[in-house]
Amino acid sequence: MIHQEELHIATRGRGTDDVTGQVQAVLSEAEITVGTCNVFVAHTSASLVVTENADPQVRRDLEAWLSRAVPDGDPLFRHTAEGPDDMPAHVRAALLETSVTLPVSRGRLALGTWQGLFLFEHRLAPHTRRLIVTVVGA
Amino acid sequence: MIHQEELHIATRGRGTDDVTGQVQAVLSEAEITVGTCNVFVAHTSASLVVTENADPQVRRDLEAWLSRAVPDGDPLFRHTAEGPDDMPAHVRAALLETSVTLPVSRGRLALGTWQGLFLFEHRLAPHTRRLIVTVVGA
Amino acid sequence: MIHQEELHIATRGRGTDDVTGQVQAVLSEAEITVGTCNVFVAHTSASLVVTENADPQVRRDLEAWLSRAVPDGDPLFRHTAEGPDDMPAHVRAALLETSVTLPVSRGRLALGTWQGLFLFEHRLAPHTRRLIVTVVGA
Repeated sequence: MIHQEELHIATRGRGTDDVTGQVQAVLSEAEITVGTCNVFVAHTSASLVVTENADPQVRRDLEAWLSRAVPDGDPLFRHTAEGPDDMPAHVRAALLETSVTLPVSRGRLALGTWQGLFLFEHRLAPHTRRLIVTVVGA
Repeated sequence: MIHQEELHIATRGRGTDDVTGQVQAVLSEAEITVGTCNVFVAHTSASLVVTENADPQVRRDLEAWLSRAVPDGDPLFRHTAEGPDDMPAHVRAALLETSVTLPVSRGRLALGTWQGLFLFEHRLAPHTRRLIVTVVGA
Repeated sequence: MIHQEELHIATRGRGTDDVTGQVQAVLSEAEITVGTCNVFVAHTSASLVVTENADPQVRRDLEAWLSRAVPDGDPLFRHTAEGPDDMPAHVRAALLETSVTLPVSRGRLALGTWQGLFLFEHRLAPHTRRLIVTVVGA
């Protein structure tokens, strides 16, 4: 059995949004007990990341590390037409995930105790991001 | 329904090749309307990356960032038998993707407007790289 | 056909363990000839990585690069309650993979000649890590 649905997430600019609940809601409609749930972000300047959902400092620190490793306005970059955060967003997207496949067990995302799935907006300005959720299972 | 096929891509040395069309061609043979298409590179010194396909400077800048973050000939590395680009290629492969799962919708790869799937050769010399494309769907 | 099983891997602290054989064993029970095998690590401070299995120096060098790029005890980090290796473990987990999908061909993981699947423990202390293996195929 296959079930596919799109989600549209309005981001508030650079940072993370927990989308675990919205993906679980799609999965619940799929009526699949066991299998996989693939989440794909249809953009090259936003990412998906599975990380700790307990302490928000984890995402703050991840952002701090990325900001230092891939600084905005780096003179290394030539693709700068859309601003100093444009090319860093593409590098971040290459380093994190565009597509994440989560296991499904007993009709639920089989995440660990502290795991959440986050949409990571890399651009400074808010965007509406399109996610495609595809559930495969039985 | 499952369909699997191998692609052999001749790279020209370090850099990116757009393989979206070749993967779409495999998908078209699969006669699957909705599902997922997994692409796997059977090597540890080349990667897959989903990134912008409009401005080639994006891939040039991504390469520039990787060259600075994981420099060839870094004295940190001991695995140097195959040359100064050998171990950096493995680190780049760990940072980017060995396996990418793309959603399939209406028989097409459901990529965003500016997204392409690229094979990223990390070695300086040209290689023939083997991709395994597995389509699962209905 | 879908087959899902959990693996519990006792790590010895920071470093890599080859789990290819254990994942192949799950696959063998699945009696699936062609398809995909997803491996998911249910933790945010350990990763999966597909890399060279021939020369152990490759994993030593990968660890050396990560230790330099994401140093323990970095004053950048605020999420430090569990120690100097806590937040670096989360950053490493974001950079490497939480979920890897491998192709299955003739009932075997269709890996390249030198490819192995490794569990990468990022914490300094030993942990027991839970992997969820989901095989989809025919």
